[in-house]
Amino acid sequence: MKTYKIALLPGDGIGRDVTAAAKAVLEKVAARNGFSFAVSSYPWSCDYYLEHGSMMPANGIETLRSFDAILLGAVGWPRKVPDSVSLHGLLLPIRKAFVQYANIRPHRLLPGVQGPLRSENFDILCIRENTEGEYSGAGGRVHQGTDSEVAVETSVFTRKGVERILRFGFEQARARRGKLASVTKSNAQKYSMVFWDEITQRLSAEYSDVEVTSYHIDAMAARMVMAPDSLDVVVASNLFGDILTDLGAAIQGGLGFAASANINPNRSAPSMFEPVHGSAPDIAHLGIANPIAAIWSGAMMLEHLGETAAAGKVMAAIEATTARGIGSIPGKDKTDAITSSVLSALD
Amino acid sequence: MKTYKIALLPGDGIGRDVTAAAKAVLEKVAARNGFSFAVSSYPWSCDYYLEHGSMMPANGIETLRSFDAILLGAVGWPRKVPDSVSLHGLLLPIRKAFVQYANIRPHRLLPGVQGPLRSENFDILCIRENTEGEYSGAGGRVHQGTDSEVAVETSVFTRKGVERILRFGFEQARARRGKLASVTKSNAQKYSMVFWDEITQRLSAEYSDVEVTSYHIDAMAARMVMAPDSLDVVVASNLFGDILTDLGAAIQGGLGFAASANINPNRSAPSMFEPVHGSAPDIAHLGIANPIAAIWSGAMMLEHLGETAAAGKVMAAIEATTARGIGSIPGKDKTDAITSSVLSALD
Ligand SMILES: CC(C)[C@H](C(=O)O)[C@@H](O)C(=O)O
Ligand SMILES: CC(C)[C@H](C(=O)O)[C@@H](O)C(=O)O
Repeated sequence: MKTYKIALLPGDGIGRDVTAAAKAVLEKVAARNGFSFAVSSYPWSCDYYLEHGSMMPANGIETLRSFDAILLGAVGWPRKVPDSVSLHGLLLPIRKAFVQYANIRPHRLLPGVQGPLRSENFDILCIRENTEGEYSGAGGRVHQGTDSEVAVETSVFTRKGVERILRFGFEQARARRGKLASVTKSNAQKYSMVFWDEITQRLSAEYSDVEVTSYHIDAMAARMVMAPDSLDVVVASNLFGDILTDLGAAIQGGLGFAASANINPNRSAPSMFEPVHGSAPDIAHLGIANPIAAIWSGAMMLEHLGETAAAGKVMAAIEATTARGIGSIPGKDKTDAITSSVLSALD
Repeated sequence: MKTYKIALLPGDGIGRDVTAAAKAVLEKVAARNGFSFAVSSYPWSCDYYLEHGSMMPANGIETLRSFDAILLGAVGWPRKVPDSVSLHGLLLPIRKAFVQYANIRPHRLLPGVQGPLRSENFDILCIRENTEGEYSGAGGRVHQGTDSEVAVETSVFTRKGVERILRFGFEQARARRGKLASVTKSNAQKYSMVFWDEITQRLSAEYSDVEVTSYHIDAMAARMVMAPDSLDVVVASNLFGDILTDLGAAIQGGLGFAASANINPNRSAPSMFEPVHGSAPDIAHLGIANPIAAIWSGAMMLEHLGETAAAGKVMAAIEATTARGIGSIPGKDKTDAITSSVLSALD
């Protein structure tokens, strides 16, 4: 029997609730489909930081490297540790160290879910660059604390980094409806974004079967709300992808439904699967977090591991659950009730 | 009789159509309210660039400086001149040179307009920093054209720049419903955005009557779609404000309804009024552009000039027009028909 080694990082707040749910679903579907998981859980989080002075141990990255995949809940609890510290201490270094350069986030309405838009007909796959750009962490502050203080933050885009995410986007478009939207802000950012546009332009010749269109980020944000049905695959930088995928989560009914995969396409290191939502400290441990985004992220993990049939079964179980009105209305059902429904739908 | 000196910059594409409409409305309301306009029009645009090699003459800024206000249509026609050239050659230098540091954009549904959201109940005022930040234009490209190419783009935030826009935001909140949302991305951008958050935090003590909340840009994008009624005044950096205001335009029914004012609050130089939409080359000169955003921007200009009664009359005329179903459905009515309706509503 094939056993996959999974590192579980529940993280903070509702991250713990929703990863417990996802783990239960994954273990059940594995048992029914002839494989299993060996799950090692690590308590790295803001609480861990308060105790140890760092979000993970010095050998954290090395510890994770030998796993087949990582399942993460959520990181951050601003009242305990500033977000700028907690995220740069755990989530962001994993994405970068394991070259998880493609962050994949699907946006569509699950059955029974009513989104905030009048329009219900869309199926968007956002591909977000996940290792560089506006999240490079380069910058500084001068004349700190004085009236003359200046803070600078530098976005760094490499040709390799931009080209590989665009190629990934073109491939995804090819495997779907053949349309790629590339998102920049080249009318205002004349170095980084013009660079990205040029590479998009050059690659489009190689993927002549894909219809590629460049949009400015502002126009794309409007389009996702005005005409989401006009979009297929959307590829964007780290920051723009971050913004568009929360917007995507919103139009699909809320953060409780938005799944994501941080993929290392070469498989030179583990990929990581996580719901798009944060740790939501205000509802932590009340047992009311919606686990669907985490379970859906688990399905993306199964897909990545090659367990396509099992992935399909988890998605079908999620859809059967929301179609029955369970977990489909934000705040209505408890975490356990939703999880039980998904588990029974697997029978 | 008071005469205001106005510089008219129709710019490109539909900028010409909509500024003609706004000018007609402004002249009529002036005549009825005992003041007048001396309008000087300048053809600075992408066509001008093709002829002269620059978007405006070398003394363009100096030419504009003596006016009481500037009314601008739209800048950009990518097939003629790259956006990165046209915008950095005309729109962006005016905002910076005239220290129009507060870009004000109201988002609410005009009567008769159906937005894309199920929710129709919101009234948001976005205040966008307009002179620095992500639009600083600092950056470069190294190893250009090689596999090792790197492009960097540096956001520059000054204490003076951040503090003045936040103060402006606090003041606006005070004059409205007392709620200010400050938008950053301090969990990922630990220099610039943490700096902004710190200043927000510090100023909040001075404006203890204003309820201020910090949001990450991704969460705010989702909120504008999920719970727009929870927002009053939103203050954000140049780029984040750009994105949120196109999103704001979307939820208010489209770019045809989104007005803006680029304000120099000290009045040390002219302020500029412009619709949020772009030049829309595909529909240029077809006579089908919606002039409402430009006319509304004209009303904001009247307000800024102190002609509050006239501003109110223009807004009432716009509202009477859309309430009658004219100009309220994107693409339905011609520019002239909408303009005529606003003009007659002024009678
Ligand atoms: C928590 C934060 C740093 C993170 C990001 O911006 O990448 C999150 O918003 C996400 O989208 O995964
Ligand atoms: C045309 C472009 C440079 C401009 C901006 O990004 O500021 C526009 O989108 C706007 O919002 O006024």
